Formats: sequence, structure tokens, C-alpha cells
Amino acid sequence: MRHFQLLEYAGFSQSNPTMARPPLKFDLATVYVSDAQYNRNIFFDTSPQAVRLYLLYNHWFMQTLVYAFIIVNLALALFEDPAVVPLPIWATSTIEIICLSAFSVRMVHYAKVIPKDKFWKDPKNICIIVVLSFIDLTIYGALKSTGYFAIRWSRVLRPLLLVNVTEGRQLRRAFRSIRNALPQISYVFLLFMFSVLVFSLVALKLFGKRGLLTIDGSPYFTDYLDIVFDLYVLVTTANSPDVMMPAYNYSVFFTIFFILYIIINTYTFMSFFLAVVYSNYKKHLKEEVRQLVKARRFKMCRAFSLLHEARGEGGEPVVTQTKWNHLVKLVKPNINIAHRELLWSVLDDQNKGHIGKFAFVQLADLLSIQVITVKSQPHPIQICFPSMYNSPVSRFIRYVVHQRMFVYVYDLIILVNAVFIGLDEENPVVSNAEWGFLALYMLEIILKLYATEPRAFFARHHFWNWFDTIIIVSALFGTIINSALKHCYTSRQILDIIFILRVLRLIRLVDSIKRFRAIINILIKIGPTILTFGQLIVVVYYIFAMVGMELFKGKVQFFEPNSTSPDQEYCGNPLLKGTTFAKLNYCKNNFNNVVSSFIVLLELTVVNQWHDILYKYRSKPVTHISARIFFVLFHIVVVIIIINIFVAFILEAFLVEYTIDKSDLQTSLEKKIEELELNVQQDGVDTGLVDAMESNDNELGPSEAGKQKPSLMFKIASRRSRTVDGLLQRMFETDIRPEDFVEEEEPENINFSNPVFDSV
Amino acid sequence: MRHFQLLEYAGFSQSNPTMARPPLKFDLATVYVSDAQYNRNIFFDTSPQAVRLYLLYNHWFMQTLVYAFIIVNLALALFEDPAVVPLPIWATSTIEIICLSAFSVRMVHYAKVIPKDKFWKDPKNICIIVVLSFIDLTIYGALKSTGYFAIRWSRVLRPLLLVNVTEGRQLRRAFRSIRNALPQISYVFLLFMFSVLVFSLVALKLFGKRGLLTIDGSPYFTDYLDIVFDLYVLVTTANSPDVMMPAYNYSVFFTIFFILYIIINTYTFMSFFLAVVYSNYKKHLKEEVRQLVKARRFKMCRAFSLLHEARGEGGEPVVTQTKWNHLVKLVKPNINIAHRELLWSVLDDQNKGHIGKFAFVQLADLLSIQVITVKSQPHPIQICFPSMYNSPVSRFIRYVVHQRMFVYVYDLIILVNAVFIGLDEENPVVSNAEWGFLALYMLEIILKLYATEPRAFFARHHFWNWFDTIIIVSALFGTIINSALKHCYTSRQILDIIFILRVLRLIRLVDSIKRFRAIINILIKIGPTILTFGQLIVVVYYIFAMVGMELFKGKVQFFEPNSTSPDQEYCGNPLLKGTTFAKLNYCKNNFNNVVSSFIVLLELTVVNQWHDILYKYRSKPVTHISARIFFVLFHIVVVIIIINIFVAFILEAFLVEYTIDKSDLQTSLEKKIEELELNVQQDGVDTGLVDAMESNDNELGPSEAGKQKPSLMFKIASRRSRTVDGLLQRMFETDIRPEDFVEEEEPENINFSNPVFDSV
Repeated sequence: MRHFQLLEYAGFSQSNPTMARPPLKFDLATVYVSDAQYNRNIFFDTSPQAVRLYLLYNHWFMQTLVYAFIIVNLALALFEDPAVVPLPIWATSTIEIICLSAFSVRMVHYAKVIPKDKFWKDPKNICIIVVLSFIDLTIYGALKSTGYFAIRWSRVLRPLLLVNVTEGRQLRRAFRSIRNALPQISYVFLLFMFSVLVFSLVALKLFGKRGLLTIDGSPYFTDYLDIVFDLYVLVTTANSPDVMMPAYNYSVFFTIFFILYIIINTYTFMSFFLAVVYSNYKKHLKEEVRQLVKARRFKMCRAFSLLHEARGEGGEPVVTQTKWNHLVKLVKPNINIAHRELLWSVLDDQNKGHIGKFAFVQLADLLSIQVITVKSQPHPIQICFPSMYNSPVSRFIRYVVHQRMFVYVYDLIILVNAVFIGLDEENPVVSNAEWGFLALYMLEIILKLYATEPRAFFARHHFWNWFDTIIIVSALFGTIINSALKHCYTSRQILDIIFILRVLRLIRLVDSIKRFRAIINILIKIGPTILTFGQLIVVVYYIFAMVGMELFKGKVQFFEPNSTSPDQEYCGNPLLKGTTFAKLNYCKNNFNNVVSSFIVLLELTVVNQWHDILYKYRSKPVTHISARIFFVLFHIVVVIIIINIFVAFILEAFLVEYTIDKSDLQTSLEKKIEELELNVQQDGVDTGLVDAMESNDNELGPSEAGKQKPSLMFKIASRRSRTVDGLLQRMFETDIRPEDFVEEEEPENINFSNPVFDSV
Repeated sequence: MRHFQLLEYAGFSQSNPTMARPPLKFDLATVYVSDAQYNRNIFFDTSPQAVRLYLLYNHWFMQTLVYAFIIVNLALALFEDPAVVPLPIWATSTIEIICLSAFSVRMVHYAKVIPKDKFWKDPKNICIIVVLSFIDLTIYGALKSTGYFAIRWSRVLRPLLLVNVTEGRQLRRAFRSIRNALPQISYVFLLFMFSVLVFSLVALKLFGKRGLLTIDGSPYFTDYLDIVFDLYVLVTTANSPDVMMPAYNYSVFFTIFFILYIIINTYTFMSFFLAVVYSNYKKHLKEEVRQLVKARRFKMCRAFSLLHEARGEGGEPVVTQTKWNHLVKLVKPNINIAHRELLWSVLDDQNKGHIGKFAFVQLADLLSIQVITVKSQPHPIQICFPSMYNSPVSRFIRYVVHQRMFVYVYDLIILVNAVFIGLDEENPVVSNAEWGFLALYMLEIILKLYATEPRAFFARHHFWNWFDTIIIVSALFGTIINSALKHCYTSRQILDIIFILRVLRLIRLVDSIKRFRAIINILIKIGPTILTFGQLIVVVYYIFAMVGMELFKGKVQFFEPNSTSPDQEYCGNPLLKGTTFAKLNYCKNNFNNVVSSFIVLLELTVVNQWHDILYKYRSKPVTHISARIFFVLFHIVVVIIIINIFVAFILEAFLVEYTIDKSDLQTSLEKKIEELELNVQQDGVDTGLVDAMESNDNELGPSEAGKQKPSLMFKIASRRSRTVDGLLQRMFETDIRPEDFVEEEEPENINFSNPVFDSV
């Protein structure tokens, strides 16, 4: 084993006088490396000024600002007619103009960064949106001020800014997935529609002449278009037994028709949609990740060519450790020297003092592996009161806290707590017991803090420690405030919050069961992606909400439950008298403002009862029959496409979680850590599917504290903290690695696409 | 290219005097090869008597008989109380005893076939079922005859015979899939239930105290168990907006609770179930196919060891062509000599006259590739009236029929026909037009028969030719019968059948569009598997129907629509007065006999409104609250497990269809056919995903008839005609091939499992 002096080496790289190249080279290399690390794909100009502008362009503050403007722009829908909180037109218009100006400035900034000839290729979408919005705003203002009827049609374009302006890779990838799957989906959809049409024809002929009646007395299956729509709804299962009942009541043999229909259309075709989306998703994702890895390698090669010098055997270009140190310090200023040394020792395996292109290129991947540095510091109490901290009683307490039994006891307490939560809280015993539970939980945290070094306890990767502490402390404050205010008045809101905090505590119970932890880990990992899909859903919902509001606003009125208006019975629309819509009290499911539109769209996504939400479509009056087109279109876009992409993602994430192991690089880093005896010991619990690091509370505990250990230790962050991109990349890593390194990328030949603004 | 005399070789193998081994060897080898070919895995005794019994055991007649008895046994439910057609107890009991005796005889037969020591390992399930059924029958008979209340509980066991007695591999595989996925599904399910319970607790505390009311005036979210059930139903989306409406009407912020719930439970957890089922399905299927291939190789090796003789270079054991021919003739008596020669030439590539073990083992796979023999015979009319058939007019007609335009014209005719079908049939123009269409379709068939040799036209693999002819001829007969009877009376049934035949014609339209054909092919391929899932569904439905009938029979009455009984309004049960169940006229959704039970279970599978079908569970009277357990259990078994396995199968089938090419063996067979210039020419249309053979009507057409061609030609049946097993095997073929041939299976070492009776 090699002797490795971590800290003695510290001062070396900073005071090295051999640094010859001008600092600009380093700036540029830094940009390349960090671009490679964060997968940014902007083809920027390499002049010093452009590089500086590019750094500003990528600055987190600028990015946040852009997001803020987009959110403000989208939020305008709350204040515009039909508004939740009405604001005058001049106010909303002014805000919109400010937002649009901000996007324009961002565009100008972008134009300054990239070469002139590349500019017009990409951001045309944004320019079009901005220009169209300005035009619409002008027309609308003019028409409104002269008292004419006007529609703000450009509002539909707003969510597209979310896709185009920001660098949200996932969102854009999801959009590309959809676009790529579209041709195949449309073939399946056409065949599916053919099947629905043929079945409708059969239904018309079988049932139409028999004079059957539906429950509300209207003739059953006599109009072809109505039948098509009814059978389309049956595919979503929303009208499942109802649509069959009249035929079934007439003869049991007619159910064969519906059984066949359900098997073929509801089950087989719907599975086909999933299969098509899934297979396309998989195929295109692979291609995209391959492109991403290629681009990353290319950027690393450019960085290498800026820093290399011919010093290796046979005059091979190499990068010296000095330069490499300088570069890493610029790319990641906040990693400590020991960590940097560790990374170097992984790359420079033979301890030659310089690395070749192959090793250098791995830097970006290496930097993206999260290494946790654990400093084994003595406990503060040990420093202040060493005799007390090392007394037998103190030792015993620390011993107890690190036992499995301690965890089990607290699991039991949580279980008892769950029962108490379920009981009536107005019972004084129950409300007083809450204080007891709070005290117990506080005691747990204090004991753990006593037994573990506080900075280790609150390390960034200790998710459950943070979770517990925040939940308990908030609950404590909430309960105190509530009991202080109790004598004046009881606020339901505070009680609700306290109560939810209490229930959240129960979640910890799940994490202490091994089998569940694996599933929870997948859930946590999928979390960020759900946010991506959240953005996707917001984009689609927003567009449909804008259209829906223009089409259906004011058709239905909601009356507060305690209102005495006679219109309440039929949602303020006499045409709805006696309809299922009114009977089920669906008045609030309307398009009267953006919030309720979103909720209606959510209900339509869940699909059930959507034919009823269609405002009793069968008798024409309330909305035009073409409203069905709106709803069917929504169903196709959201349920058939987006939800299936979501399911496809979960399927793939699940399969990856089960099959793919750590990447080569991660393993070699781990091996190196182990080789250097710098690894944090883990207890021997077999964690099965996923590492149990987070809940592994007794690391650095007293049992190990006795041994002679280095003062700094490392471990690889568990898979839990991986990002979606990391997950996706790992999915296809094994396929990409070999073949991508055979072809030495020549900067001239590679098709360095600039996929930033070309998505929608 | 080798000269290959196909027909001259014919008499050789039959009259060869060198056949030295006793015929028993050949019988045994034949059994091994056909076992390998059909993947039968019974470890039979090798004594001559046992082999003969084994052949009888596998005879198609015996297998059909067993199926017939199972169907009769299952069909008894139609005649037993509660019956569709009531029969006296003595009659049903007698039939059941006959069936059970038949199964016992089958068991005895099985016991004679396999070695004594192996017998008790496997068929214990059947024995238990048969014995239990006899006991139940006795008890039931005794109790009924003395007038006591009795339940035929053993009826629940009946469908298990379908799984255990028959050799239905797919069904058993599906059951094994379920059994293997069960532990993982249960972990996810427990976590899911934990989530539902926690959400219910939150709901109880948030909404319970606010005094909200549901639409029917009952308190909203006040009872914990009711909330749990309501939220479980929300997961199935069946009560989607309704369960939210009271909270939403109270405050818009409460929708956050439901949105979170829907995202986490309805979407994420339900996708998790699919993912778990899918990943398990994939994993275990792979393992099973591997076992299957291993067992097959082992059996082929045994056959080889029976027939081999040391004649190769270095005294290697080989099988001579003579023996091989004899064997193939015994295994597949109906394949012609030329085909056999073709197979031999694939195996004996160097034309040595004998093959080694490696080549011999491939025989089973080779036999399972469907090779279509096409005899290029002259048209019968050409033989009878050569001058007429070869006249310019006749040539022109044949030329026209083989043009693409001819297909397009008929597609157009079908389209016009579709419009006419949609029109009112009582219009005389429309009903007369039908005769015109029929004539046109008949003309098409006659023309095609004129242009193509009739035996080639009606070859087994020409699906659409058969389809067309049957549909048209049936429709013709139906229409004639109908118009003959019209003057006496109009039978709706005949009209319905004619009409359905007419609509079926439209389907052909789809097959002429290339993009659709690929999807249709997948549909057709999935067809047989849907039948397997059908059996699975029947097993599960039957069990639930039996339990459901005992629990719920007679609770609800259905009255014919024209009945005047006042009970009709509440389905004959006063407790149902005013409930949604009665209002929606769901009276026929009951468990009063096995047919309506199956239909109710189908509705529960589709999931919508299932909480309403639960007979108004909220107010206790009609059925006990534990009925919910029945319904939830059904939901878990059918929707969460079986439907997901179905979706998993479709997903996998779809992915395989897109990715995997033909197997090596199939390619080498094709190459050989091409090498020998015996391949059937196909037209140059790029068929993309799937071969276009079936719709390729002009093969052997006049344009080719002029050339000098061999009188017999071959082609590989398109992928369309592959079985599910073939599909599954192909799925993992690439993984299995290499490693499985490295290990030379020793008959002693291989774990030759006997998986026939060990499934449930």
C-alpha cells in the first residue's frame, strides 16, 4: 500500500511558479469542464469578452431571474379576466411588457455569447413568441380601449417560454420524447379509432332499432356520433357499466359486444399506447444520452488541448498535476485539498505526476460523483468537559443510543403516537399525551446529538436527521403557540399544520424497515423527475386552461354552500336543471378562473366522470357539441401521451434500479478510497437493494472512536442522492462506454449540435 | 452450388436394409424428439409398455377428453343452485362424480407412465382436489337430503383443475409469474396501504371536524374506516371528483390534499405495481425459457444416444441419414420428402451422410420452424381448357387481378360499402345495393381464384383469403335465407348476423395499409396469449363467482323492463330504496347466477362505479360491511396483479417485435432454401416491420409462371404464424444460445425437473 500524505501536500500547488500559460486558457478550460460537468451545450464564442459574458449568462442569479420572470408571466393569468383577483388591464399589461423585455434582454445576451452565424438557428421560437405577444397585447389594448370584444390569444404561447427560455434539459427531453413518439402513436391511434368506429357501427345496427332507453329516458344508441363518443368514453372506463346496462337488461348476449370491446380497445389498445410510448422513450433516450456523453467528451478534449504539454513517454501530450490542481480549484472552489488529492490519485494511477488525455477526460464524470468528506472531530462536549463525557454513565448512554434496540423503542413510540393521533383530540388525556410525545422525540434528538458529533449528525446527506429535527422543532413551536393562543381563540389553520407535522413523523417508521426503504429510495429518486413532469403538465394544462377559459367561462356559476339563491340548484344555468352535473353538485368544476380550470383539468386527467363534467353534452344547450373535441384532445394529449411517458419513466427507473450496478469510475474511486484506508466503516447490515447509509446512525460512533483513524475520511454518496440525469446516464452507460472511446473525437469532425433552443 | 436431387432420393430411406436396432429404440427416440418439440416435460418410464402408455397419454384425443371433462365440470355451475337452468341435485352430482372419476382415471394413467418413486411428488394437488370434492359432495348430499343448510364449498376448487390437470404451459407459467412476483408486490402493497392509512388520518383530522356533508347529506369524512375505503376507491379513480367535491366546495386549498394523494397513490404507486410485475415477469420468464431450452437439449441428447453409432472421424458418435429419415418420418408423418431433405441438408452442411450430436440436437428447433411447401401446379382451368386460359383476354384478366390497382379499387368499394352500412337499411335503395356489393365481392373471389391456383389461394397461411371467402359466402347465404324468409317473418337474429358479417368485411381495409399491418400482426400474435389470460381470468373469476354467489345471492332482484312490479324501483330490496344502485338501474348487476356473477366481476375489473356496485355500502343493511373485503381482494388480484401481467406481456411482445430479428437457425434454413433456388419469390415491396407475405397475392402469378422453375418451392412461414412460446423463446434466445451449449449436458447431472403438476 502506498503512503499518501494528504495534508502535508496542501501548500504545494498554490505556490508553484511553473505556471506558464496565460490565465485566459484556464478560464476557458474551466468553462469547458464545468459545461461538461453540468451538460451545458451552448456553442459559445471563445474570445475573452464572450467567455466572460458566457460565465455571466450561466450565473445562477441570471438563471433564477429568468425563472422568476417566467413564473410572474405565467402567474398573470390569476389577475387577467377571468381573474381570481382582478387587476386593471394597464397593470397586467405593464407587468407582461416588463417580462417580455426581460426575455428580450436575455436573447440579446445570448446573441453576444455565441458566434453571429449560429444565432438565428436556435432562438427563433422565443423571438416569435415575444413578437406575437407584443402584437396581441397591442391589438387587445386597442380593441378594449375602444370597447370592442377581444381575446388575448397569445396567452396560449406563454408556457412555451418555460420550455424555450430556460435550460431545463429534462423538460425539453420530455417534449422531444413526445415529438419522436408521435408518428407511431398516431398509427396506433388511427387503428384504434378505426376499431371504435367499426364497433360503433355494429352498436348502431344491433341496438339502434330495438327501441331501448337509457336511465334518463333518452333513446339508446341511435345516433352514430353519440355512439362513437360513448364508446370512446368507455375506453377511459368512465361510463363503464352504465353504457352497457340498457343492452344488458334487454339480453345477456349483448354483453358479448361490450366484453369484446373492452378487451380489444380498453385493455389491448391502451396497453399498445403504453408500449409504443415506452419503446420510443427507451430508444430516443439512449440516443440522447449517447449524444450527451459525446458532447461532454468533446468539451473535455478541448479543455485538455488548452492545457496539455508534450512531456509523456514518446512526447505524448499530458497535463501536469499543478495545472490540473489549478483547474479543479477554479471549477470547484469549495472542494477541499484532500478530496482533490484523492481524485488525482484515481486518475494518475501510476503516480507519474501527469495524466494523459484518456484520464483527463474522466474528470467531468469524476467530479459528478458525490464524495462526502467526513471529518472525525471530537465531540464539542468532549472538548469542554472531557471528564464528564468520558464518565461511565456518559459512555453507557452513548452505547445505548447506538443500539438497534433504541431504534425499535422509538418505532414503538411512533406506533403508539399514531393511535393517539387517531383518537379524539378534544379529550384532555390525548392532548396532554401530545406533550409527552413531543418530549420523547426531543429527548431522542438530544441523545443522538450527544452520542454523535453534531456536524456529522447534520451532514448534508443525513436526510432523516434533518427531517426529524425540522418536524419535531416545528411541531414543538406550533404546539406552544397554539396553547398560548388557546385562551384567546383557536385557529384551525395552526391546528391543521401542527397535525400534519405530527402525521409526517409516522413516515419515519417506514424507513426503518429494510424492504420498504428500497421502495422509498426509488420514490425519492423519482421525486425530481415528477417535478419535471410537473412542469410538462403545467405547460399543457396552461394551454388547455387558456383555451378552456375562452370557450367555457361563465357558463356555470358556483354558489357558496350557505347561499340561499334558488339558482344554486342548477349552477346558475337554467339549462342544467335536472342534469347529473347539477345533481352531483359539480358547479365548482368550471372554467371561470385559472385555478378552477386547473382543478377541472386535473379531474379530466383522472378521467372518471369526465363525460359528466362535459356539462351534460347530450342535450346541446350549455356548450356547443364541439366542446367534446376539446375534451377528447385533452384526453389524447394528457392521458394517452403524457401519463404514459410518466409510467414509462417509472418502469425504466425501476428496472435500472434492479439491474445496473455502480459505474466503473465510481467503483475505481471507491477502491482507491479503500486502498488508502480512508473509507468510512459501515455496519454489516445487508442492505439489499439500496445502501442503507442514510439511516446508518452509528458511523463514527464510540465503538470505532477508540481506533487510530485518519482525521479525514471519505465515502461515496449513496445512490439516493443521484440526480435524474445521473440515473438516465447510468441506464445506458454500459452500452455507451466502449464504442464511444474507440473513436477519438476530432473537434472538427464532430457534429456539435446546439440543442438549447430547438426543442419545440 | 450443389446439385440436389429431391425427388429421385425418395424411395431410398424406406427400403434401406441396414437398419439394425430394434424398433423400440426408434419409438423411444420419437417420443423424446416430439417431447422436445412440444416442450413436454414428463419424466416417463422407458419400459416398452410405459412408452406405449405414454404415447396414449399424450394422444390428442385423451387431451381433448380431459379438456371436455373440465369444461363440463366447470359448466355445472350453470345448473347448480343458484342456477341459470336448475337441474335436480342428483343430476348435477352424478355428472360431477363422472368428471371426478375421469380425472382419477387420468391420474392412474399418469401413475402408470412415470416411475413409481416420482409419482407422489407432483399430482398431489389433483388428488387433494378430487378427494375434497368427493367429501364435499357426500356431506352436501347428506345434509340436503335431511333438509339442513349446506354449502358446496368445493366448487371453489374446480377451476384449479384447469391449471393442474391439463398441460397448459402458458397458464401455468402465468400462475408461476404471479407466485414469483407476490413477495415484491406485497412489499409495495404494504407501503401503498401505509400511505393510504396516513392520508386517511390526515383527511380525518382536516375534514372530519368541519361538519361538511356529502351530496346525499351524510357526514363527510368522519369515520376512519370509511375514509380509508373512500381513498382506496379513489386510487381506482372510480369516485374521482365526487369524493373531493365537498372539500373543494369548502376551500380550494383542500384540493392540494387530493392532488398529492392522486400523484402519489393513483399514479406513482399504481405504476410501481406495473413496474414490479413487469420486472419480475421478465426475470422469471427468462429463467423458465432457459430451463425449457435445457430440458429440450437434454431430451434430444437422449434421443441421439439411442440412435448414434461410432462412424465419424475419430470414432465420434454420429447418426446416419437413414436413421434420421426414419426418425423424422415417425415424428412428423405428414411432412413431405422434399421438406425432409431440405432439413437434412441444413443439418448436414458438408454432405457427409451423417450428423453429429450438435447438429442432431437442432432437429427439434428446426421442426418447429414452419416451412410452407408451395407446389407450382398448373391452374385446373389451364389443364382443362388450355387455349381459353392462355387467350389474350384471359391473360389480361389475370394481369389486371395481380395489379396493385385492383386492390385499391376494392378498398374503395369497401369504403363505399361502409357508408351504405351506416345508412338506414329499410331504404330499398340501400337494401338492394347490398346485393350489388355481394356480387362485387363474389366477383373478386372468383377472379382471384381464376388468376391464382386454387390450392395456392387456399393455402393454410393465406389468412386473408380464407377470411374473405368465409365472410362473403356466409353473408351471401345469410342474405338469401333472410330474403326468402322475409315474406313470412323477419328474424332479427339472422339480420344481426348478416350485419356483423358485413361489418367484418371492413377489417380487410386495414390490412392493405402497411403501417397498420404491423400493428395488426402484433394483435394477431397476441391473440393466443389473450386466450391464456382468458383461462387465467376464468380461473380467478370462477373462484370469486362461487364465493360471491354464496355471499350475495338473492340480495338483489332483477325485473324484466316491462314488469309492473312496484319492487322494480328498488331491485326487490326495500333497503335499496333511493340509493345510487337502484337509481342507476343496476339491478341486473347481481350474484344470482354464475353468468351474472361473471358480468359483475367484469364490471369490477373495469373498476368504474365499483363502489356503487358494492350495493350502497355506506348504510350497512344490504350486505355486511365485510363485503368490501371481497371487492378489495378482487381488485388486488385481478386489477393490480393479472391486468398488470397482461400489460407486461404486451409491453414485452411489442419490444421484442421491434428489436429481435430471426433466430440463427431460421436464417440458416432460409439461406439453404435460397442456395437451392427453391425460394418463393416475393415482390419488392419493402414490408418494413413485418413480412407482407399474407397479402402478397401475386406470388406464382403469370409473370413468373413463364420462367423455368422447380415444381416444389419453400418459404418460411411469416412471423405472424408463430406461437406464443416461439415468441417468448425468441425473446431470450440471444442470451441463451452460447452459454447453454458450452456445458455438455450429462444426463445424470442435469436437474430434470418435472414441472407438470407443481404449479399452484
